[in-house]
Amino acid sequence: MNKIIILILSLLGLVCVFGQNVVPYPQQITLTNNCYVSVSPGSISISPSIQSTTFNIAVERYLNLFFPFTNTSSTSDKITLSVSINSDDETLQLGIDESYTLNIAQGSLELKSNTIYGAMRGLETFKQMIVYDVTSNTYSIQCAQIVDYPRYPWRGIMVDSARHFITKNFILHIIDALGYNKFNTMHWHLVDAQSFAVESTTYPDLTQAAFGPKAVFSHDDIQEVVAYAKTYGIRVIPEFDIPGHAAAWGVGYPELTCTCPDYAANINNIPLDISNPNTLTFLQNFFSEIAPLFPDQHFHTGGDELVTGCWNEDQNMVSWMEKMGFSTTDAFQYFENNLDVTMKVINRTKMTWNDPIDYGVQLSPDTVVQVWSSGADLQGILNSGYKSIVSFAWYLDKQVPDGNTHYEWQDTWQDFYNADPVNGITSNAQNIIGGEAAMFAEQVSEVNWDVRVWPRAIGVAERLWSSQGTNSVTSALPRIGAFSCDMSRRGIQSGPLFTDYCPLPEDLAFTLKPTMKLSKSEIKQILNN
Amino acid sequence: MNKIIILILSLLGLVCVFGQNVVPYPQQITLTNNCYVSVSPGSISISPSIQSTTFNIAVERYLNLFFPFTNTSSTSDKITLSVSINSDDETLQLGIDESYTLNIAQGSLELKSNTIYGAMRGLETFKQMIVYDVTSNTYSIQCAQIVDYPRYPWRGIMVDSARHFITKNFILHIIDALGYNKFNTMHWHLVDAQSFAVESTTYPDLTQAAFGPKAVFSHDDIQEVVAYAKTYGIRVIPEFDIPGHAAAWGVGYPELTCTCPDYAANINNIPLDISNPNTLTFLQNFFSEIAPLFPDQHFHTGGDELVTGCWNEDQNMVSWMEKMGFSTTDAFQYFENNLDVTMKVINRTKMTWNDPIDYGVQLSPDTVVQVWSSGADLQGILNSGYKSIVSFAWYLDKQVPDGNTHYEWQDTWQDFYNADPVNGITSNAQNIIGGEAAMFAEQVSEVNWDVRVWPRAIGVAERLWSSQGTNSVTSALPRIGAFSCDMSRRGIQSGPLFTDYCPLPEDLAFTLKPTMKLSKSEIKQILNN
Repeated sequence: MNKIIILILSLLGLVCVFGQNVVPYPQQITLTNNCYVSVSPGSISISPSIQSTTFNIAVERYLNLFFPFTNTSSTSDKITLSVSINSDDETLQLGIDESYTLNIAQGSLELKSNTIYGAMRGLETFKQMIVYDVTSNTYSIQCAQIVDYPRYPWRGIMVDSARHFITKNFILHIIDALGYNKFNTMHWHLVDAQSFAVESTTYPDLTQAAFGPKAVFSHDDIQEVVAYAKTYGIRVIPEFDIPGHAAAWGVGYPELTCTCPDYAANINNIPLDISNPNTLTFLQNFFSEIAPLFPDQHFHTGGDELVTGCWNEDQNMVSWMEKMGFSTTDAFQYFENNLDVTMKVINRTKMTWNDPIDYGVQLSPDTVVQVWSSGADLQGILNSGYKSIVSFAWYLDKQVPDGNTHYEWQDTWQDFYNADPVNGITSNAQNIIGGEAAMFAEQVSEVNWDVRVWPRAIGVAERLWSSQGTNSVTSALPRIGAFSCDMSRRGIQSGPLFTDYCPLPEDLAFTLKPTMKLSKSEIKQILNN
Repeated sequence: MNKIIILILSLLGLVCVFGQNVVPYPQQITLTNNCYVSVSPGSISISPSIQSTTFNIAVERYLNLFFPFTNTSSTSDKITLSVSINSDDETLQLGIDESYTLNIAQGSLELKSNTIYGAMRGLETFKQMIVYDVTSNTYSIQCAQIVDYPRYPWRGIMVDSARHFITKNFILHIIDALGYNKFNTMHWHLVDAQSFAVESTTYPDLTQAAFGPKAVFSHDDIQEVVAYAKTYGIRVIPEFDIPGHAAAWGVGYPELTCTCPDYAANINNIPLDISNPNTLTFLQNFFSEIAPLFPDQHFHTGGDELVTGCWNEDQNMVSWMEKMGFSTTDAFQYFENNLDVTMKVINRTKMTWNDPIDYGVQLSPDTVVQVWSSGADLQGILNSGYKSIVSFAWYLDKQVPDGNTHYEWQDTWQDFYNADPVNGITSNAQNIIGGEAAMFAEQVSEVNWDVRVWPRAIGVAERLWSSQGTNSVTSALPRIGAFSCDMSRRGIQSGPLFTDYCPLPEDLAFTLKPTMKLSKSEIKQILNN
């Protein structure tokens, strides 16, 4: 065997054979040398200490995921992963206990946690510890002790289904990928200027702004998404972006939005007409209908990119602001104050982008502020005492995220990885409660969603879960590359980060087929003419 | 209906309803106002004037492609597309006649061409003229007269299956997409430093450098690929990249490659040891075995990024160059001259990247030179009289192609679109015979190939086919966006270029499914806990 093949195999070995490739990297992992548990399809069973429908779904899912290739070259003794969960409380809210310990030894597999959600994280780690060796076509697990818990309680991806409609099934597929990355939050940007895809029984004409009759999420759809997410311990935070980006609200209910011809060329410019008290009542009624579908405590009301120029051109707004003695900032403040009342009515905590603060609006102190602009803005917001979510360095739609370029586009994962939430923060870092990567979807539909997001967002997943000191791109590269291969074998279209060999199961959904199958005689005839 | 919905529908209308959205844009298209032919699944038959297995495959394929949604809301009268082809010569080489005319009128559909390949281009245009209206769920074709032919005879995509192995089926899938874009060349970068995936009966140990036993293209596979490509009028040009990037040749046959520890950290640095006369014999024997599998006249021998430092460190090379009185340039010249002899033996025309010229090597005058470096280099090469293929502005792996950045990554299609081969060329432009976009695959496997290439490479397809004056990004945007939707409905993962609504057939290969299907009672239990 030549030196080059050895070099290649060493690389593959680094990537595929050893067991330390868990992503996000655990807080503590102690591997036992020369100790491996051989496993094979069907050889693992899972025995939980509590009875839970939610957790049972997770168990069934992982039993299906452990072995992407079932026609293996060996069989193994039966072995049980015992899962010991201290509490049967399934409440899923910010700050739930996601810690777990995992002990893998010859003849003994033990997972322990305080909640079913910690156990789900442990199942994901256990899945990643099962390593498939392509050369021998066998599976094994290196003996290990793992103690793990997340660095931040809020770890999310923003999914924009307003610029392109995403089918319910694809939303569930996205949640699968989030779960594999130990993300615990799906921020669902449900409505924007371009479409309104949420069914409302109170205001049925809202969906006149859907892209089509089939491009609407029913209440049942939303409940299925929330339940599905719960089987991964993923909270679903809805965003209804107001008062800017509001054109879609006005399609079925024109009185809700402003008229400003000078700004209308860009549909994103149209805000709500908040001079009309019916607008505020409408929002309260609508949110009262919708909020129960989303059990999470947090409710995102957007607040970004308000075009006050449109307010200054709309006749109703101009008259009302004059009557009230309001500047546009006063009007925005009035609106946010009113929203706070609505939040009390629906018993939710408001979340907004950082724009209201930039406009000089005072948000109520419990508002969670998602910072998309810059680290400097983040510092100011932290100092003002707001709990903050970091997003500015993690815009998945940008060609040049964070201003960095590489030879290859996929390498932008490194920028995401290097963007620690506390970079440049000198005070009040304790107010950072996590972060979200944002996939705004002007140029993304379910056709290309996976490839745009993965494996780049894996860097964000590790940044938010693993310890601050786990920050070497060089160390992360082989792990993240191997995990990307693992994800693709589970049906997520996460491409490679370097030259490697990741054969896929033949029955994967995305293994595309040519339009025609030529027979041998057709091939011969075609080539002979 | 509100003004905003009208605005949205206008945009969708522009994109989806009218018939002028053919991509690449034809040389001449005259549309008849208020004249539409209604069609529906099964209503179209195709009647060719000649009997050809090759063309029959194309006919069968397009009959399957015309109607992505079969459950339509109306049926239409039967209508026949008569296809009149002047010659039954199926020879597929550079410069074949791809022209066609298409006449669409009430009760009459006529396609005329000189060759089956012109007729294939016409079938693609006809397919694109069939417009699906999502609102009414019906199909129609606007009456039109089209006269069309390509601007350049060489229009290709380079596919790198050496950095990541691509299965035969996915290669066929790639060819489908090339055909839809009227590309006529697949440049197949079969071997590079990282792997050797081509079966050889003469030298069976070459595939020791394959990624695995299943990661090898057999002779049958290659013949199927070449035959499949021919059913689209696509020439397949193999590339065996030598004398640089040659590490893989040395895995099974170590005597073929140089030893240079100072350079070995980068596997791309290892060149052939050309001091050994057996190396040259080996190449001639191997190419004599392989060339008959690729009937195209052109044979690409790479020639890029030779690391002469490795030659200067390898003891055999040093002794030999000293004995011959050769500089490294002389040695490179000697090698290229020798390759020319081999080309005569196998009756092929050599094609190389522009690097040998940069090194001061004189290539034989019939060499086709593929320019990857710059327009300035292209100008010099054109002035030297070489027929040239333009690639430098069309590197699909680069994050910042051509130095341009956009807010969104997908917008790099505009840079490709704007990169006219003659930009900055002041003389001998007639020596440009076409171009190729290049998808080097260090970070691309079949998991993400489609999304990395499409819709960005559509810009290259139009640049190479359509007239030089068809060069407005603004005009092209709605057409290319609509075509990208059309491609995705045919199973190519080509994402959107703007906010639109492109529902897909439910049976598409890439419409991904979630891991678990929750029952209504499970959803209820999960949400209640």
